[in-house]
Amino acid sequence: MAQKPTIPKGTRDFGPQEMARRNYIFDTIRSVFRLYGFRQIETPAMEQMSSLMGKYGEEGDKLLFRIQNSGEKAAEAPEKGLRYDLTVPFARYVVQHREELSFPFRRYQIQPVWRADRPQKGRYREFYQCDVDVVGTDSLVSELELIEIVREVYRRFGIRVSLHINNRKILAGIAEVIGEPDKLIDVTVAIDKLDKIGLENVNKELLERGLSQTAVDKLQPILALSGTNEEKLSVIRNLLSQSTIGTQGVEEMETVFALAKDAIPADSDTFRIELDLTLARGLNYYTGAIFEVKALDVAMGSITGGGRYDNLTGIFGLPGVSGVGISFGADRIYDVLTELNLYPETMTEQTQVLFATFGDAELRYALGWAATLRQAGINTEVYPEPAKMKKQMGYADSNRIPFVAIVGGNEMESQTVMLKDMQSGEQKAVTKDELIAELTK
Amino acid sequence: MAQKPTIPKGTRDFGPQEMARRNYIFDTIRSVFRLYGFRQIETPAMEQMSSLMGKYGEEGDKLLFRIQNSGEKAAEAPEKGLRYDLTVPFARYVVQHREELSFPFRRYQIQPVWRADRPQKGRYREFYQCDVDVVGTDSLVSELELIEIVREVYRRFGIRVSLHINNRKILAGIAEVIGEPDKLIDVTVAIDKLDKIGLENVNKELLERGLSQTAVDKLQPILALSGTNEEKLSVIRNLLSQSTIGTQGVEEMETVFALAKDAIPADSDTFRIELDLTLARGLNYYTGAIFEVKALDVAMGSITGGGRYDNLTGIFGLPGVSGVGISFGADRIYDVLTELNLYPETMTEQTQVLFATFGDAELRYALGWAATLRQAGINTEVYPEPAKMKKQMGYADSNRIPFVAIVGGNEMESQTVMLKDMQSGEQKAVTKDELIAELTK
Repeated sequence: MAQKPTIPKGTRDFGPQEMARRNYIFDTIRSVFRLYGFRQIETPAMEQMSSLMGKYGEEGDKLLFRIQNSGEKAAEAPEKGLRYDLTVPFARYVVQHREELSFPFRRYQIQPVWRADRPQKGRYREFYQCDVDVVGTDSLVSELELIEIVREVYRRFGIRVSLHINNRKILAGIAEVIGEPDKLIDVTVAIDKLDKIGLENVNKELLERGLSQTAVDKLQPILALSGTNEEKLSVIRNLLSQSTIGTQGVEEMETVFALAKDAIPADSDTFRIELDLTLARGLNYYTGAIFEVKALDVAMGSITGGGRYDNLTGIFGLPGVSGVGISFGADRIYDVLTELNLYPETMTEQTQVLFATFGDAELRYALGWAATLRQAGINTEVYPEPAKMKKQMGYADSNRIPFVAIVGGNEMESQTVMLKDMQSGEQKAVTKDELIAELTK
Repeated sequence: MAQKPTIPKGTRDFGPQEMARRNYIFDTIRSVFRLYGFRQIETPAMEQMSSLMGKYGEEGDKLLFRIQNSGEKAAEAPEKGLRYDLTVPFARYVVQHREELSFPFRRYQIQPVWRADRPQKGRYREFYQCDVDVVGTDSLVSELELIEIVREVYRRFGIRVSLHINNRKILAGIAEVIGEPDKLIDVTVAIDKLDKIGLENVNKELLERGLSQTAVDKLQPILALSGTNEEKLSVIRNLLSQSTIGTQGVEEMETVFALAKDAIPADSDTFRIELDLTLARGLNYYTGAIFEVKALDVAMGSITGGGRYDNLTGIFGLPGVSGVGISFGADRIYDVLTELNLYPETMTEQTQVLFATFGDAELRYALGWAATLRQAGINTEVYPEPAKMKKQMGYADSNRIPFVAIVGGNEMESQTVMLKDMQSGEQKAVTKDELIAELTK
C-alpha cells in the first residue's frame, strides 16, 4: 500500500472518544456561560492581516499563519491571516458592529485559533479557546461574575481549583512607592521567583536589574506578605497609601472580595480565591484585575486566565470601552480531567444498544425495533449486515456499546430480543416494552 | 474615528441571534445523527496540500486556500491548505487511523470548510458542512438509515421535503442499452432539461451532442416515465433487462424502497421519496445511490445531498472500502427556516430574566437572588450597574429578554422583586419562590 497520509505538524485529529470528552468540556463551559446570560458569537477563521498585525507583539506577528490569495488580484484582495486568538477578533467585531450591539455586551466564543509555534508536547498549532467577556462597563460586578463562572465550571467538572487574582494598579502602585515606576516588570518577575530562589537571591536580582537599595528595602514588606487575603490587603493598603493608582487597585480588590464573600458559598475545600501579587500575565494589556486559575490536585500551568482591559477596542479606533474577560483552555482541562479520571461514565452521545442479527429476516425485524427505540429517544444502532455473530459482538465491544440485542429465529417467533449486558455478560429475553424500560432507566 | 475594520470578502460574523438559530440547526442535526449511533470526529482546518490536490478536479484545485509556511524551512514543511470539504479529510482520516477503527465505521462531522470561490449572494468562502457517512459495508441498510435521518431531521425542523433518489448503475445501464455507454453525462444533462425545454428540444439536443437517432429513439420510454416509484421502476427494469449493471441498479433501488416502506410511516404529506433519473450529481465519484433533498414549500436548491461511493479511500491507497454518506447544508436550511418562520419561539440559550436595580444596595440584593435562580437552572443576568432604569429596560428590550425583575427599596424591604413581563407589559410583586416558579413553568 502507498505511504499513509499524514496531517500537518502540530495539528490533531479527534476520534469519537476524544470528541465525546471534548464535547463534555465544551458543553459544560457553554451551559455555565449561558446561565450567566452570555451570548455566543462566531467570527471567521480568516481576518484581514491588517486586523492582526501588531496586536500580539513582534513575536506574535511571526506566529501568524498567512493565507495566499487565490484567484484574485493582489490589489483587490487585502492579505488575510488565520485568527491567532479570540480577543482581537472580538475587539474587531465590537467596533465593526457597534451600532447593532447594546452595551454592556456580554459575549462568549468557542472556536479554534492557529499559531505557527514550534510544535512540542502540549503545544499545538490549532487549538480551541473558550472566551467569555463583558465590554462597555467598568462595574466590578463583572469581575464577580467571572469568578462565579470559574467556580461553577470547575464545580461541575469536579476539579478543585485555586483562583489567583491580582490587580495591575496595585503593581503600578508598588513600583511607584518604591520610586521605580518604570521597573514594574522587573519587580513582578523578581517577586515571582520568591518561592524558587528565596528572599536573598530575589533581593540580589533586584539590585542587578538596576533597582536602588532604597527601593529594594521598601519592597521588603511586600515580599514578606502572608496571611489571609484580608490581611495581605491591609498591609498593601498601608504601603500604598501615598499612591493614587495603588490605592485604587486596593479598593477594587476589596470590593471584589466583598462581593465574592456575599455571593460564593464558603466551600474553601474545592474553590479558593487567592490574592497573588506574583501574578503578572498580560501586563501589556490588562489595566485592572488579572486572573489565573490552577488545579489544586494536578501539577499543570494555568487552566483559565484573563483580566480587565480598559482599551481593547482602541486598537480599532473606538477608545474608552472597558471590558473584562477570561479564557478557558480546553486542552489543559482535558488533560486534568483525564489525569484525575473525572469524566462521567456515560456520555450522552453514546450508542446505548446495538442490534445483532442472524439473517436477513432478523435484520428487517431489528430495523422495526430500532425505529421504535429511536422514537423513545434511545441512541440505537443496527449492525447493517447479518455478519458472523463474533464480528458483530466485537463491533459492540470496541465501540463500548453497553447493550447488544441479539435477534435469531426464536426471538422473532416470541416477539423478543436476547438482551446482553456487555459489562456483566448476563443475557435475558425481553419484549419491546421491557427493552425500552431497561434502556431508559 | 478611524475607518471601521472589515472582514475578508465572502466571510461572515455571526451575532448572538444568528448563533442561537445556527445552534438550533446544528443541535437538531447532531441529535439525530447520535440517535442513529453515528460518532463525531474532527479533523484539522489545515491538511497537507498533497492530501487535497487533485481530489476536486481542476476547478477545485484552483479554489483551495493555501497557507504560507511560517517560521519553517520549505524543505522541512510540506505545503498546507485549508480543507475544502469534509469528505476528503474523512477519507484521509479513515486510511490514517484504520488500525484503531472498527468497521463499519459510522462517523459524523460538523465543521467549516473554505473555498476561494468568487463571493456572491448565498455563496460564501467559509461555510459549515454537516456530514454523516458509513464506510466499510455495502449493505443497503445504510442507505435506508440515511433516508430515515433525512426524514427525522426535517420532521424536527417542520420542513416538508422531497427526497430524490437515483442510482448511478441505472444511468450506466441506460447509456449501455441505448448503445452510448460513453454518453452517460450527456444523457442525464438532457433528461434534466425535460421540464424546462420540453421533449422535442431535448431530443434535438441529444442529437446535437452526438447521440445516434437509434439511441434517441430507445431513450423515449425513459423520457416518458411517469407514475409511482414502483411503476417507474418496473418500466426501467424491462428496459434494462439486457444490462447487468442496469439490472443491479434497479434491484438496489427496489431493495431500498422495500426497506423504506417497512421503516417509514406513510406520512407522504411531509416526506416524499421520489425516484428521479434526472438526478446526476457527483457522477465522477458516486457509484450507487445518489440522494438530493428539496424543500417542498420554498424555491431553493438542494438542502441535503449525498450518495454511495465504492472507492473513497482509494485515493489514499486503501481500495475496496465502500461507503455512503450525505451532507446537510446549514446555510440553506437556515434560509428555509427563516423564510417559513419555523424557528422555535424560545431558544434554550436565551437569558430568561434580567435584574434591574435602583442603587448599589439593590444591586447586591439582586446578586443574591440571581445566584439562587442560577442554581435552579434559570439563565439569569444582573445589569452590572444601577444605571438609569430606562437604559436597563432598553437593554432587556434589545436583547429580547422576556422578564425583568426590578429592585428598589420597597422590594428589598418586602423581600420581593417587581417582575415585569416585557411582552404584555404587566408587572407584579413576587417572592423568590414565586419568581422561580414563574420562570420554570
